[in-house]
Amino acid sequence: MKDLNIGMIGYGFMGRAHSNAYKRVNDFFDLEYRPVLKAACARNEENIKAFADNWGYESIETDWKKLLERDDIDAVDICAPNNVHKEMAIAAAEAGKMILCEKPLSMDVAEGEEMVEAIEKAGVANTVWYNYRRVPAVTLAKVLIDEGRLGKIFHYRANFLQDWTIDADLPQGGEGLWRMDAAVAGSGVTGDLLAHCIDTALWLNGPMVDVSAMTETFVKEREHALTGKKEPVTIDDACTFMGHFANGSLALFESTRYARGHKALYTLEINGEKASIRWDLLDLHRLEYFDHADDSIVRGWRSIHVTDGDMPYMDKWWVPGLQIGYEHTFVHQVADFIEGITKGEPCGPTFRDALETQKVCDAVLQSAASRQWVNV
Amino acid sequence: MKDLNIGMIGYGFMGRAHSNAYKRVNDFFDLEYRPVLKAACARNEENIKAFADNWGYESIETDWKKLLERDDIDAVDICAPNNVHKEMAIAAAEAGKMILCEKPLSMDVAEGEEMVEAIEKAGVANTVWYNYRRVPAVTLAKVLIDEGRLGKIFHYRANFLQDWTIDADLPQGGEGLWRMDAAVAGSGVTGDLLAHCIDTALWLNGPMVDVSAMTETFVKEREHALTGKKEPVTIDDACTFMGHFANGSLALFESTRYARGHKALYTLEINGEKASIRWDLLDLHRLEYFDHADDSIVRGWRSIHVTDGDMPYMDKWWVPGLQIGYEHTFVHQVADFIEGITKGEPCGPTFRDALETQKVCDAVLQSAASRQWVNV
Amino acid sequence: MKDLNIGMIGYGFMGRAHSNAYKRVNDFFDLEYRPVLKAACARNEENIKAFADNWGYESIETDWKKLLERDDIDAVDICAPNNVHKEMAIAAAEAGKMILCEKPLSMDVAEGEEMVEAIEKAGVANTVWYNYRRVPAVTLAKVLIDEGRLGKIFHYRANFLQDWTIDADLPQGGEGLWRMDAAVAGSGVTGDLLAHCIDTALWLNGPMVDVSAMTETFVKEREHALTGKKEPVTIDDACTFMGHFANGSLALFESTRYARGHKALYTLEINGEKASIRWDLLDLHRLEYFDHADDSIVRGWRSIHVTDGDMPYMDKWWVPGLQIGYEHTFVHQVADFIEGITKGEPCGPTFRDALETQKVCDAVLQSAASRQWVNV
Amino acid sequence: MKDLNIGMIGYGFMGRAHSNAYKRVNDFFDLEYRPVLKAACARNEENIKAFADNWGYESIETDWKKLLERDDIDAVDICAPNNVHKEMAIAAAEAGKMILCEKPLSMDVAEGEEMVEAIEKAGVANTVWYNYRRVPAVTLAKVLIDEGRLGKIFHYRANFLQDWTIDADLPQGGEGLWRMDAAVAGSGVTGDLLAHCIDTALWLNGPMVDVSAMTETFVKEREHALTGKKEPVTIDDACTFMGHFANGSLALFESTRYARGHKALYTLEINGEKASIRWDLLDLHRLEYFDHADDSIVRGWRSIHVTDGDMPYMDKWWVPGLQIGYEHTFVHQVADFIEGITKGEPCGPTFRDALETQKVCDAVLQSAASRQWVNV
Repeated sequence: MKDLNIGMIGYGFMGRAHSNAYKRVNDFFDLEYRPVLKAACARNEENIKAFADNWGYESIETDWKKLLERDDIDAVDICAPNNVHKEMAIAAAEAGKMILCEKPLSMDVAEGEEMVEAIEKAGVANTVWYNYRRVPAVTLAKVLIDEGRLGKIFHYRANFLQDWTIDADLPQGGEGLWRMDAAVAGSGVTGDLLAHCIDTALWLNGPMVDVSAMTETFVKEREHALTGKKEPVTIDDACTFMGHFANGSLALFESTRYARGHKALYTLEINGEKASIRWDLLDLHRLEYFDHADDSIVRGWRSIHVTDGDMPYMDKWWVPGLQIGYEHTFVHQVADFIEGITKGEPCGPTFRDALETQKVCDAVLQSAASRQWVNV
Repeated sequence: MKDLNIGMIGYGFMGRAHSNAYKRVNDFFDLEYRPVLKAACARNEENIKAFADNWGYESIETDWKKLLERDDIDAVDICAPNNVHKEMAIAAAEAGKMILCEKPLSMDVAEGEEMVEAIEKAGVANTVWYNYRRVPAVTLAKVLIDEGRLGKIFHYRANFLQDWTIDADLPQGGEGLWRMDAAVAGSGVTGDLLAHCIDTALWLNGPMVDVSAMTETFVKEREHALTGKKEPVTIDDACTFMGHFANGSLALFESTRYARGHKALYTLEINGEKASIRWDLLDLHRLEYFDHADDSIVRGWRSIHVTDGDMPYMDKWWVPGLQIGYEHTFVHQVADFIEGITKGEPCGPTFRDALETQKVCDAVLQSAASRQWVNV
Repeated sequence: MKDLNIGMIGYGFMGRAHSNAYKRVNDFFDLEYRPVLKAACARNEENIKAFADNWGYESIETDWKKLLERDDIDAVDICAPNNVHKEMAIAAAEAGKMILCEKPLSMDVAEGEEMVEAIEKAGVANTVWYNYRRVPAVTLAKVLIDEGRLGKIFHYRANFLQDWTIDADLPQGGEGLWRMDAAVAGSGVTGDLLAHCIDTALWLNGPMVDVSAMTETFVKEREHALTGKKEPVTIDDACTFMGHFANGSLALFESTRYARGHKALYTLEINGEKASIRWDLLDLHRLEYFDHADDSIVRGWRSIHVTDGDMPYMDKWWVPGLQIGYEHTFVHQVADFIEGITKGEPCGPTFRDALETQKVCDAVLQSAASRQWVNV
Repeated sequence: MKDLNIGMIGYGFMGRAHSNAYKRVNDFFDLEYRPVLKAACARNEENIKAFADNWGYESIETDWKKLLERDDIDAVDICAPNNVHKEMAIAAAEAGKMILCEKPLSMDVAEGEEMVEAIEKAGVANTVWYNYRRVPAVTLAKVLIDEGRLGKIFHYRANFLQDWTIDADLPQGGEGLWRMDAAVAGSGVTGDLLAHCIDTALWLNGPMVDVSAMTETFVKEREHALTGKKEPVTIDDACTFMGHFANGSLALFESTRYARGHKALYTLEINGEKASIRWDLLDLHRLEYFDHADDSIVRGWRSIHVTDGDMPYMDKWWVPGLQIGYEHTFVHQVADFIEGITKGEPCGPTFRDALETQKVCDAVLQSAASRQWVNV
């Protein structure tokens, strides 16, 4: 087994989730490479030192450019805020590093296009962490669609509902709350939450044609952590859009951080001529399935507990009935990334795939601003 | 269409439910007889008068023996407490009346045997109001079992959980609470609730062989409405039993009025070699079904919304997706009773069927008292 | 108790539902009037005769104008297709009859305004059969909102999903399928299904400000029952819209007849600052409720089984745990209508209320046609 | 941080689950010891070598007695079949090793008593892997009960239903199927599945007084993997028992491997005077809770998604809404075991705790054999 030396940039929630994945993947998957936690990098030395100690990184860096200069780093994992993805990714590509980049890919399509150009020119392996593709139940949905079990698709519906910013006293910006500052995050729920829904949708249902969107910022001013003053909130608190897929089906997407009672309710539902499926992140190990071909007196939505060994990825884990959780999606992505570099095949979503998601996000924001339909 | 003149004895909850059924059945079912609310009978003249006025009974009686003497009564509906079922039913049979009797059939097996003997000697049409057989989802369960979809049965499980007697200040006895007085009710939850579960089970899964039971009375003394004094509580507050069916499957039954959070949770589940089903009174329009023959990657419990026109009884009501409720079970039983007298066929559960349920109830109570296994 | 003589126009699904309500209401509600099924009216003599016989109407008419001339008719119930509502309602108002009109009120706002003008000029009691307001769980939602339990509202979401027109061989038009012919129905799912969602929304959450909509007709041509030829389908098979309520909350509505697996899935969800609620027609006796004020370790969505006697309307029916169904909503509306005429108060939704729903429907259709935002 | 050198005996399903826990615990919990995978031991050298390589054990042994002789082993983890627990545990205690032993503790009470005596004499830290106590939702149940939220308990109900041995062609015995051979496993579902339910029950609800049980072996003969011949099946395929807890509440337990449609349905429900709770392994991250003190119009079962940071163990993992899975229960037990040795406190369930579970299991099997009530 060969080493795959990882250089991690960032140490937040995603830094933890990815580090866990690198450390666990070989215990469960039979692979040709073993990720090695070579270096962790962030400007704040104290914080990155503590993170590296906790997870067992062999070294630290406080300047990401130095990290890229190191010969002992094979792959760079970008877990920094969205507004630095472009610079880091392009430099990493130019340094010949493989890249695993957090989502969303970029602040906007223009940035994304530069990134794709650089990475494809460099020819390095790359992937973007739209991890929900690799929930076994979601991967199963892909299998069922590819087998033709749904037939012609009429509707694709998704939402991502949260409730953690309702309190008007919650500040914005700074390290913990940069997702509430558009200058750092690019947008609010659109890039943070809807981007996940869009990535899954493009993967399961193909490209989109056009969108009509609406955004809202419910709390107009919040104290900014960097200035200590009340400042206008620049992100979208909620975003809804409808539109058309190229296959003729209708799209309906919604996201908000003001849906009291929902912590992370990412749901999707697809209605086809022959069958329908739906899924819900809060019970991520189940897929609901309705098959019109069932005998009419025993026809109903089936609740599939996706834990048997013939389910995607599940032969690697435990036994039927025993569920895995959120963090395993990252383990699966690392496993697939390693399979990809072993076979010389891309591991979706690549930067190019993620650019397609960015195009939809940009169209959505443009439509909301102009109150017009916008082509993707 | 011919008249079927009904003489109702009683005016409580069941009196209402049955009256409603008689009045509605011809609006929805195409039948040869129309029930006519000829007379309502109870000792309390004021109460029975109000009841008769409300429901449109043409006359009242305050002596049930007089009711039986009337030539204009074809069928007697016994909604009086359990301790008078025997006397009324035998007299009604001897008077040549058809009989629709509330459940449980009798105070015990000895009474029940006298009743069956009398009614079969008289040769009158008869039925006992174990209405849950005629919830469409439960009737569908019978259809699925009879089609052989479940295969060999391993387990039959049922419970009936309520929580309305937890308050120790609730009195016992008298008109409203006779179900808490064993002298009137025969037993507590065993005859009131488990009898329903047993009737359904015998119908769906065949006869029982033996039982081992446990009963409990949590609140030992309550004020008695008739005496005004604290008196020992004579009923079983909870009853659990296990046992064997003749087909080799195992039985597990439980009932209580001390299950906080459950108002009327009658559930049943049957596990067969090929398929399983379960049902729950609180969502009575759904049947859950698991079919092992499904492709493994889309195998799961199906939630069947039993409202389509090809479901039992449902062609008579509304359109797919629109549910009926509790009261409709009585309408179905009246419809089937009338079909029965039209065709000269029995309408189950007959008195003889209900006697089988009584035998299980008696065995259960005997087992609980003796702490021994008892053959049915 | 006084008679309220009903003249019914139509004999279809709604004719049955309303007739049932008139016949049952006095068995369960204590009212000053008793509906009397005086006359049923339709052009097809054979069909209306059969309907009248089934339900016990005392007479029939084949010309609705003759019905309006009769002195023995107090109230007219309009269950005829949408394209004749206006003419009938205005004539009925001019004849001084009370009017109970099926939804949607009219083909469009212009018609609706004429109707409201006529009916208000005549000063007759009136109501429109948006029956879902009177599902006890939905009425309970209104109670909770009026008590201030939800606080400021952020989101109102509703959909109505069906799947009965997916088959491309289903014809359009004629008696049974007039809902698929825009010349008779006015629109497709917008008037048939979304109108229900909009009525409930305006009642629960107040007026709407603007909308952006999208419609789709998936099957472009179907055989027309009246011509026997393939003709263009003129209705909307699916309609989605987003928008704003006057209280600042965001609207998201969707309806379709192409959602495989859904027979009549009318759901609504309201997210407030303090609490959220959701409801689903397929389990209409439950209301889901999330209260942020609960202790955090026991906080979760509550599934309220709306069957206790302190729930709206439920003191009239059975006992806790025993559910009622779809048809009871009409009984409730008749009871409230009679209460209204007794007290001289309107019974919502009145024609004027229903006109507000029509305004939203028209704005939705206009927005879909123009691909522009439209003010209501 | 100090090393805690682990010697693992066994390499099956539990060997994997425990190894994973040792490797992960320090990434998420701040502890004074770090488990070191020092040695893995089994008779089959090839298999244990592969296991050790996969998980990173530093060495292997093929004789467990040699393992116990090694000075570099602090704690022994016994994942061998039940029939060797006693010999290994006593020897390990005598060698002064800490012991983490798979459940059930022993083949019977007599063995268990010897083990407890030895281990308490040696004074070594010990725990038994009844891991379900450490599902956060189950731990939360313990918190709620200890806070007095349920009040007096009336009912404790648990079952563990599986369906993997229905096929009569499944063989028995040998490495993979030793759980089907009573000579190795001690019993069938009683020790394998019900023991889990009993451990949780004793922890949550206190000691049991008496039981009445029934067992069944549905398939009487199966090919034995060691002899290649059809031999009598010696285990119980299903076991049901009822009984009394010392606190006056009633017990009802059931387990089977013949419940078609259930892979690992461990459910428990507790009904108290003031509140009730229920839990289900198939959706292990949720706890259902019913609080009678809620306002009556908003009273219902709450579905608590146990993922917030104030839930037991959950501050160590991800963010609200993102669930953990089955394997995390073992991580929690390792963390608590290390906390225990740090503070010099026992980590339940200890061997002594597990002996209490064994006593109930023995009473259950004795009752089933004798068809008599048996005191625990």
